[in-house]
Amino acid sequence: MKTKELLKKYYEKKDLIDNYYKAINIISFDFSTICPKKGRDDKSIIMSTLGTEAFKLQKDPEFIEIINELYNRRNELSIYDQKGINDYHKTLEKTKNITPELNYKASIAANESYTSWVNDKNANQYDQYEKKLSEVIKYTRMFIELRDEKKETYYDSLLDDYEPGYNTKRLDEFFNKLKNRIVPLVKEIQENGKSIRKDFLSRKVKIEKQEKFSKYLMKTIGMDMDRTYLSTTEHPFTNQLSQNDVRITTHYYEDMFLSNLFSVVHEGGHAIYMSNEPNIFYKHRMSGLQTSAMHETISRLYENMLARSHEFIELIYPKVKKLDKAFNDVSLEELYEAVNISEPSLIRTEADELTYCLHIIIRYEIERDLINGIISTKELPEIWNKKYEEYLGITPKGYADGLLQDVHWSDGSFGYFPSYALGNAYAAQIYHKMSNEINIGEAIKNNKMSIIREWLKKNVFAYGSLYDPDEWIIKCTNESLNVDYYLDYLEQKYRKIYNI
Amino acid sequence: MKTKELLKKYYEKKDLIDNYYKAINIISFDFSTICPKKGRDDKSIIMSTLGTEAFKLQKDPEFIEIINELYNRRNELSIYDQKGINDYHKTLEKTKNITPELNYKASIAANESYTSWVNDKNANQYDQYEKKLSEVIKYTRMFIELRDEKKETYYDSLLDDYEPGYNTKRLDEFFNKLKNRIVPLVKEIQENGKSIRKDFLSRKVKIEKQEKFSKYLMKTIGMDMDRTYLSTTEHPFTNQLSQNDVRITTHYYEDMFLSNLFSVVHEGGHAIYMSNEPNIFYKHRMSGLQTSAMHETISRLYENMLARSHEFIELIYPKVKKLDKAFNDVSLEELYEAVNISEPSLIRTEADELTYCLHIIIRYEIERDLINGIISTKELPEIWNKKYEEYLGITPKGYADGLLQDVHWSDGSFGYFPSYALGNAYAAQIYHKMSNEINIGEAIKNNKMSIIREWLKKNVFAYGSLYDPDEWIIKCTNESLNVDYYLDYLEQKYRKIYNI
Repeated sequence: MKTKELLKKYYEKKDLIDNYYKAINIISFDFSTICPKKGRDDKSIIMSTLGTEAFKLQKDPEFIEIINELYNRRNELSIYDQKGINDYHKTLEKTKNITPELNYKASIAANESYTSWVNDKNANQYDQYEKKLSEVIKYTRMFIELRDEKKETYYDSLLDDYEPGYNTKRLDEFFNKLKNRIVPLVKEIQENGKSIRKDFLSRKVKIEKQEKFSKYLMKTIGMDMDRTYLSTTEHPFTNQLSQNDVRITTHYYEDMFLSNLFSVVHEGGHAIYMSNEPNIFYKHRMSGLQTSAMHETISRLYENMLARSHEFIELIYPKVKKLDKAFNDVSLEELYEAVNISEPSLIRTEADELTYCLHIIIRYEIERDLINGIISTKELPEIWNKKYEEYLGITPKGYADGLLQDVHWSDGSFGYFPSYALGNAYAAQIYHKMSNEINIGEAIKNNKMSIIREWLKKNVFAYGSLYDPDEWIIKCTNESLNVDYYLDYLEQKYRKIYNI
Repeated sequence: MKTKELLKKYYEKKDLIDNYYKAINIISFDFSTICPKKGRDDKSIIMSTLGTEAFKLQKDPEFIEIINELYNRRNELSIYDQKGINDYHKTLEKTKNITPELNYKASIAANESYTSWVNDKNANQYDQYEKKLSEVIKYTRMFIELRDEKKETYYDSLLDDYEPGYNTKRLDEFFNKLKNRIVPLVKEIQENGKSIRKDFLSRKVKIEKQEKFSKYLMKTIGMDMDRTYLSTTEHPFTNQLSQNDVRITTHYYEDMFLSNLFSVVHEGGHAIYMSNEPNIFYKHRMSGLQTSAMHETISRLYENMLARSHEFIELIYPKVKKLDKAFNDVSLEELYEAVNISEPSLIRTEADELTYCLHIIIRYEIERDLINGIISTKELPEIWNKKYEEYLGITPKGYADGLLQDVHWSDGSFGYFPSYALGNAYAAQIYHKMSNEINIGEAIKNNKMSIIREWLKKNVFAYGSLYDPDEWIIKCTNESLNVDYYLDYLEQKYRKIYNI
C-alpha cells in the first residue's frame, strides 16, 4: 500500500480512538466538577468501559500493522506525521503486553482511588485511600514489569514517560543544584529579611466577587472566552477537550482571595498553551504531545514571572481594591510584596515562588521510593511529616494539609511532580530570552498580554509537541537547560524584595 | 443455551451498549449547558461517533440472535425481563434496515440542526435552520420508510413510538374534546372574567437570588440534592444520567421570576420520576421505559396541580416576599391569582394551564402535516403565525417568540408534542385518585411533599415502565383515560378564580 493510503487509514482509525478519549475527557471533567455525589460510581464505570473499548481498538492487529509500517517508513513522512507516528509507536510498544481486561481493572482501581482520596481528604483520614492507593501502585508496577524495555529502576520508566531523556540520576543532580542555593536563601530571608505586611490577605472576599474577578483575569492574560469555560473543583486542573474547548477550574476560599487569583492564572497558562499551538499541529493530530514539564513551563511562567511581577500588580491593583472596601488601606507596594511573601508553608499550591521547589523535592523523593518498593503506603504519613520538618521546618496538622493535599498519586500520576520544578527552570530561561526580544513589563502594564502570548506561540508553542525536551529548550532559547537562570532570577527578585 | 445464560449474555452486551448512550447523554448535557461556543462542533462529532459505535454493537448478529431467542422464550421470563426484551426487540425491528452509516449521517444532521436552531433563534432569523430542519425531516421520513411494519401515515409511525396504541384518529378525537370545552372557556374569561393584578410579575429579581430560590424549590418538592444538579440552558430539560444522577436545567429571566419557578418545578417533576422508580426496574435495566406522556403526566402534575395550588403558594409566599423588597405590597391572594392568570400568549413554556393545550394543538397539526409531506419547511413561518391567529388570536413578532421557540423539532423529536396534552389529562385523573387517598393540600401546606412523592412511587411510578399507556392508566386509577377529569378540573379552578 502507498504511504499516503496508509496514512489515511491511520488517521481514520486514530480519529475514532481519539473520539473515545475525548468522550472520557468530557465525562472526567463532569466527574470532577458538577457530578452529584451519588452519581460518581456510575461515571467511573462509563469512563473505564470506554477506555477499555478504545484500548481494544488500539490493539487491533491491523491498526498496529499500519503503525509499524508507517514507523518503518518514517523517513518518508512530514515532520508532523513523523512525530505522531513515533509517539504512537512508542506508546504501543509500552502497552503491548497489557490486556484490555487488565487495563480495565487498573482504570477502575484509579477511579476508586480518586473517589476515596476525595472522601478521606474531606474526613481528614487515610483509611480507605491507603488501601486504594496501594492497589494503584500495584498496577503501576505491574504495567512497568510488562514492558519489554527495562530501565534501571521502576521509577526511571515513569520519568521517561513524562520527560524523555530524564532519569533519577539527572534529576538528583538538578534538585541538588536547587537545594544548594534555595535552602540558604530561604534561611537568610527568615533571619534577616524585612517584615512584609500580610494582614489583609485573609480578609474575606465574597465568592461571587471572586468569580467576576476570575473572568477578568482570564481575559487579561489573553484567553479567548469563546473557547474556554471556568468551573470549580476540589483540585484545580485544565482540560483540553479540543482546540476550541480548553477549560480551566479553580477553587474559591473566602479568606484567601490570592489562592483563586494565582490558580486561575496558572491554569489559564495551561489553557493558553493548549489552544494556541500552530494549526498544523492540530491538523496532524499531534498537538498536545509536549511533555508535562513544557506545560508547567508555561503555567508557572504565567503564574510567577508574569502575574507576580510588579507590572502585573500595577495593572490589577485598581480591580483588587474594588474587590472589597477592606483593601482601601493597602498600597500598591504592599500588595506587590504580599503576593511575593516567602515563608515555609504546608500547601504546595499555595506556596510562594521560592519555597515551591522544596515541596516538589519532598514529593519527588517520596514517590521515587514508593514506586521502587522501598517504602510502603502505610509508612507514608510518617515519612511525609518527617520530610516537611526536614526541608521546611514545619509539620502538617492533619492529612488534608499534609499527605492528602495533592490529587496526583490518587489516579496514578507518579512521575509528574518533577515536571513542576523542571518547568520553573525552563520558564526562567525562556523568560530571559523573551525579555531580550520584547518589553514584557510594558506589555503587561498596557494591558496587552496578547503580545506575550504571540511571542510564546512563535518561539515556544511552535516546538513543544515536535521535539523532546533537550532539543526543545535549544530550539526555544539557543542553549541547553541552564538552571542558573532560574536561581539567579529567584536570588535577584527576593534579595530586592526582602532587602538583603 | 439455558435461558439464564442467555439473559446473562444479554445483560453484558446491553450494559456495554448502555454505557455508550450514557456517555452521549453526559456529553449532550455538557453541549447544552456549559460547552464553549466554538467547541460545539467537536462535541457533535464525538456524540455521533459514539452513537454509531453503539448502533453497530446493537446490530451485532450474535446480539440480535440472543434477543430474538429471548423474545421467543418471553413467557419464561420475569415480567421485568420480559418488558426489557419486548422493547429492545421492537426497537431492533424498527431499525433493522438502517445502516450505521445512515444512522451517523442522520445524527450529524440532527446535531447541526440543533446548532443552527440556537444560532437562528438568537439572531431572530430562519435561514440556516430551515435547510437543516428539512434535512432532519428527510432522515425521519427515510427511517420510517425503512421499517417493515407500515402504518397508515408517516406520522402514525412516530406517534406509536412515543405513545403505543395512539394514532392520528384517536388524537384528533382527543384534541377535539379539549377544543370544545377549552376554547369557549378561554373566551368567557376574556369577556367576563374579573381582572387580576399582574404588575409585579415583571419586577426584576436578580439571577443570584433566583438561583438560591431554585435550590429551595428543588428541596421543597422532594428532590434528593445528592442525586441531582441544576444547570442553565437555552431550553430547560431533564437528563437522566443514572438512577443517582438526574439533572435539571432552567433559564433565568430577571424580569420574569415565575418562569424559572415553574420551570424548576416542571423539570423537578421529571427528575423525581426518573430517580424514584422501583429498585427492581433499575436492576433489570428497564427503568425509563415509560412513555413521554407518562413523563409529562408527572412534570405537569407538579407544575400545575401542585405548584399552582393555593396551598403551594401559601407555602412559598414568605420566600417570594424575601426575593425582593418590591414584593412587599403583594398579598397572598394576589400571588395565587397571578400565577394562575389565563390569557392568550405566544410562548408555550410560559403559557398558563388553561391555554397551554391550544399551543400543543397548533404544534400537533403542524408536525403531522410536516412529516406527512403535506406542508414544507419553507411554508412553516406563515402557517405557524396563521394558526396562532386562529387559535389564540395573537401573532408572533418574530421567530424567537414564534416558530423557533421550541427545541423539539431541531433534533428530530417529531411526535413528542401530543405527550404534553395527554400528560395533562392523565395528570388530572391521577390527581383525582390521589386526592381520594391522601390530603394533598395538607401535605403541601406542612412542607411535606415527600408524602406526595411516595404516593406516586407506589401508585404510578411502579407501573410506568412496565405497561403500555392504556393498561397503565387503569393500573394507576382503575379506569381508562377519561378526559373529563382534566376538563372538569380546569373549569372548576378557572371559574372560581375568574368569578364566572
